[in-house]
Amino acid sequence: MKTTEVRISKATLRRLPRYYGHLKWMMSQGREVVSCTRLADKFGCDASGVRKDLEAVGVKGRPRVGFDIADTLDAIEEYLGWKNVREAVLVGAGKLGLALMGYHGFAVKGLKILCAFDSDSTKAGREAAGLGVYPMEKLSELTTRLGVRIGVLCVPYLAAQSAADAMVAGGVKAIWNFTPAQLDVGDDVIVENVDLSASFAALSGRLACENKILAK
Amino acid sequence: MKTTEVRISKATLRRLPRYYGHLKWMMSQGREVVSCTRLADKFGCDASGVRKDLEAVGVKGRPRVGFDIADTLDAIEEYLGWKNVREAVLVGAGKLGLALMGYHGFAVKGLKILCAFDSDSTKAGREAAGLGVYPMEKLSELTTRLGVRIGVLCVPYLAAQSAADAMVAGGVKAIWNFTPAQLDVGDDVIVENVDLSASFAALSGRLACENKILAK
Repeated sequence: MKTTEVRISKATLRRLPRYYGHLKWMMSQGREVVSCTRLADKFGCDASGVRKDLEAVGVKGRPRVGFDIADTLDAIEEYLGWKNVREAVLVGAGKLGLALMGYHGFAVKGLKILCAFDSDSTKAGREAAGLGVYPMEKLSELTTRLGVRIGVLCVPYLAAQSAADAMVAGGVKAIWNFTPAQLDVGDDVIVENVDLSASFAALSGRLACENKILAK
Repeated sequence: MKTTEVRISKATLRRLPRYYGHLKWMMSQGREVVSCTRLADKFGCDASGVRKDLEAVGVKGRPRVGFDIADTLDAIEEYLGWKNVREAVLVGAGKLGLALMGYHGFAVKGLKILCAFDSDSTKAGREAAGLGVYPMEKLSELTTRLGVRIGVLCVPYLAAQSAADAMVAGGVKAIWNFTPAQLDVGDDVIVENVDLSASFAALSGRLACENKILAK
């Protein structure tokens, strides 16, 4: 089995960890094969889409049998790079940054934060969550020297663009953006947004709407 | 100014914190009014959509002048409930759960985690990140007694559904789901998914794709 050379969609990339979780559970129940229909039922999508997703990572199903679960888990791990740890730098050692630095669960999914940068001189020069924190002025140079391609961005809104620029100057090609800012970066830089405030706003706003409707 | 009684879309709810961040920045630059066109340009959407979003939270623009920034900030805060702290329980005091419990940044956005629950008896009964951790058996009863409507779910994949069921039994109406599980809950329960593994998979998978294409 080998990973394919096709560019697969962002939607597929997001579905793969979900299939992975469910297949791990099926394996723990002693199952050895899975059909696309079964996975499609579980995730509320169509079987041909599931087949396409799995074939994209390089596994082939057998007609009337299905996909081998162990092979599929292996192919997903390989495809998502969970077997090769990816190193990253983190910018903004504030409350969220520290929480992410201290969350070692990322390690099993292939992410290893090497060190952090912060503009606050009282934080820079110290250790936090077991990692070194350096001043922002060192970001580009150290990132280049470390050869790191991934940056985790946790600075306040107003500092987001300049921090992203400094990451890119240091050779970062993929930014995991935890700020609400819309980053303006070159086409060769990938940005993945995780806006926890927006997500919580969606949750609490919907709860507020429901309550208003119920109260009427 | 008052918040409206209309049910606004999830997409609008997600955009509001972004407008908020940008308007705060404009205010810091001494601006007093903003046009929909300006906001639309910044966020790459159309001006009529921005107008609809802002009117949904109860602010009215003046023709050829625009929206008053201070009023708009106020209306967004009010609408999203940032002025009224919402209390929540957290289930799963593992690495991610602890990180979220320790992230006090949520407080400014209206979320206050009151206590946590964990099935691991070595964690339950202790304090973590300054909050009490209780055994899972107490979840429904304590949630009911506290009158809490929001649950933050950070358990492993296999434990997600049963933990969600226990939250709902305790009166939780909105689940902030940090697990990759697709929760099966009643129509009266709101679920907002934040799957950090899927998000990182999307980032690192796209980086891997780019590298493969470049290497060809």
